[in-house]
Amino acid sequence: MRVITLLTDFGLRDSYVAEMKGVILRLCPEAVVVDISHEIRKYDIEEGAYNLARAVRYFPKGTIHVGVVDPGVGGPRKPIIIEAHDAFFVGPDNGLLAPAAERLGIKGVYEITRMDLLPPRVSDVFHGRDIFAPTAALLARGLKPSDLGSQLSEYRRLPLYTVKAENGRIYAKIIHVDGFGNLVTNVTYEDLDAAGIEVGTTLEVQIGGATYRIPFVRAFSSVPVGELLLLVAGGGYLEISVNQGNASAELGVEKGVEVRLSPL
Amino acid sequence: MRVITLLTDFGLRDSYVAEMKGVILRLCPEAVVVDISHEIRKYDIEEGAYNLARAVRYFPKGTIHVGVVDPGVGGPRKPIIIEAHDAFFVGPDNGLLAPAAERLGIKGVYEITRMDLLPPRVSDVFHGRDIFAPTAALLARGLKPSDLGSQLSEYRRLPLYTVKAENGRIYAKIIHVDGFGNLVTNVTYEDLDAAGIEVGTTLEVQIGGATYRIPFVRAFSSVPVGELLLLVAGGGYLEISVNQGNASAELGVEKGVEVRLSPL
Amino acid sequence: MRVITLLTDFGLRDSYVAEMKGVILRLCPEAVVVDISHEIRKYDIEEGAYNLARAVRYFPKGTIHVGVVDPGVGGPRKPIIIEAHDAFFVGPDNGLLAPAAERLGIKGVYEITRMDLLPPRVSDVFHGRDIFAPTAALLARGLKPSDLGSQLSEYRRLPLYTVKAENGRIYAKIIHVDGFGNLVTNVTYEDLDAAGIEVGTTLEVQIGGATYRIPFVRAFSSVPVGELLLLVAGGGYLEISVNQGNASAELGVEKGVEVRLSPL
Repeated sequence: MRVITLLTDFGLRDSYVAEMKGVILRLCPEAVVVDISHEIRKYDIEEGAYNLARAVRYFPKGTIHVGVVDPGVGGPRKPIIIEAHDAFFVGPDNGLLAPAAERLGIKGVYEITRMDLLPPRVSDVFHGRDIFAPTAALLARGLKPSDLGSQLSEYRRLPLYTVKAENGRIYAKIIHVDGFGNLVTNVTYEDLDAAGIEVGTTLEVQIGGATYRIPFVRAFSSVPVGELLLLVAGGGYLEISVNQGNASAELGVEKGVEVRLSPL
Repeated sequence: MRVITLLTDFGLRDSYVAEMKGVILRLCPEAVVVDISHEIRKYDIEEGAYNLARAVRYFPKGTIHVGVVDPGVGGPRKPIIIEAHDAFFVGPDNGLLAPAAERLGIKGVYEITRMDLLPPRVSDVFHGRDIFAPTAALLARGLKPSDLGSQLSEYRRLPLYTVKAENGRIYAKIIHVDGFGNLVTNVTYEDLDAAGIEVGTTLEVQIGGATYRIPFVRAFSSVPVGELLLLVAGGGYLEISVNQGNASAELGVEKGVEVRLSPL
Repeated sequence: MRVITLLTDFGLRDSYVAEMKGVILRLCPEAVVVDISHEIRKYDIEEGAYNLARAVRYFPKGTIHVGVVDPGVGGPRKPIIIEAHDAFFVGPDNGLLAPAAERLGIKGVYEITRMDLLPPRVSDVFHGRDIFAPTAALLARGLKPSDLGSQLSEYRRLPLYTVKAENGRIYAKIIHVDGFGNLVTNVTYEDLDAAGIEVGTTLEVQIGGATYRIPFVRAFSSVPVGELLLLVAGGGYLEISVNQGNASAELGVEKGVEVRLSPL
């Protein structure tokens, strides 16, 4: 068994994702295909990269991750394979795969050049189906990245969100708003440790032109229903949430907004 | 092969469901994972319970059902396994699993206590991935519920919707509105039999402040396109529908609304 | 391994699709089930047929395709199996399956009559779960169409969109609007060849009461971001698109609209 995951901005209404799965099962009938998400905002490479980087550490060794958020399809950006520790990544060289692969540790990057090994194609607009899916299937069948292309000395990175800490304050950003309306910041446990902030304290949070005092807790239910809370959630980042509510809607805050955290 | 089903209110945009699947495939590579729904209304335990109870009787013997609609995650509600006839249920003890398990027949309920058998976790907000998914995978690998926890003498039930019949009238409720806008009541064939109501008759239906005369038929196409009908649908409950239309939109009726049925 | 695909207008919120999968896995545990789409517009047989016909050529030989967009369920329309070259189709005889099966080449059409071979059912409103899913599972187990029903001499076709070419102009239609807002016409490479239109030229496009000059290119990125383009996309049809934009929204054009193409 070999697991192949798919992450795209294709949505689930059209047959596009299914065509990718058909291609994979034709070339590698024993592959197990798992969807990470197909509802990434159209062309939003950052949102795709965030979700991929979150998910990869939970998959079995040897999993092959296909990512297709690819506004430059058919243009000069290269189709690549990244070989990482215990995983492969297949997709466009536009930064989408980089944070996830770096998290696992990169061993090598390859441009996919051996198009002669892939099924013939009629157009140059659907590399997900015509290049990335069959490449993943061939890796699942045991081919090596070097069988499918030539090594590259560099790849496109995605500017990493780094947190600025100054005078005990943390200057951060909302990097994701999830389906519950949770506001995910780029602040990790390590950043909080470095600033001396511990669970059980209350922080002053400046965001979207307003200032709030929010308790830093361990679980949503640590505060009454409808109240604001801070916690380090399942992805390892600090989130601003409302217990059983929607923090994004209630604070009127979207992805990309800056946030300043100060201990009281 | 062992089937594991997933039902959550996580949506499909975030990587949350995929992380659960990754955890399962890591621990039990031969598991076949089937989604029941991830579009349950956020925190709506009743809607989750309704869909789970509908679906379970169609799955193979030995299927393990994971349900996560869990507003109290991280609080005092217990993580449980319910052993039923030919199936297992894994999730929070908040009523979500109860109607489905009762439908199959409950053999025992266990609190999951052997956290040492599960992968280590960093936070207390994502039990779906960190407790329920690995528990399901270990059950799929052959562990018994008693290997993973200790037996409980009681569990949280979900108030069952019981129908009141009086003077030949049935007092019922809309317990679900499906994607077609069908209004699912809690009235079964047995209730209709007891009230002497048969297919082919017309009923007076009082709902949402209005009164309608609606024929009780066998198929949507038994009435002209755009007209109201009553039928006992695939879930075994009486539904108010519009042939090729949306009864919820046309009647302005949502989940929870009361309905009174009288034979003419 | 045998692949079974599902295409419906059921949506993913209700348990309906999962019930079909449960039925399949009960009867044929080794089946691999792949979703083509469950977000087909309710009752839109044409949209279902378009997506099914696109997808089928990418699946392994022997794949069984189940299609359920079935406004006439329970009425006189017949449940059928179409045996095609290297594939089977199962669903209602309402035109949904016909374009896909014709594309692969039809070998025979059968009405499903051996209801005694299927699990017993309680209602006549969910043939997807009660007739089509178990029929697909029995085909996956090796039964022949003739074991499950009797041959038909005809089936319901779906009026094919044929393009009219006159005085070097092409009179066509928008047959699909995809999730990116791309406007898919019914014009193929062959139609363009016959009209002497080649990649690299610019066409005059009349649509929705307006006239545009649009370059016919090979890739979205062949024009600047935000500009209109024509290309033959992954499905083999000419599309009107906006690079990284939404042509449907920007032109105010929906499915069904007529379009006239003239070389300059």
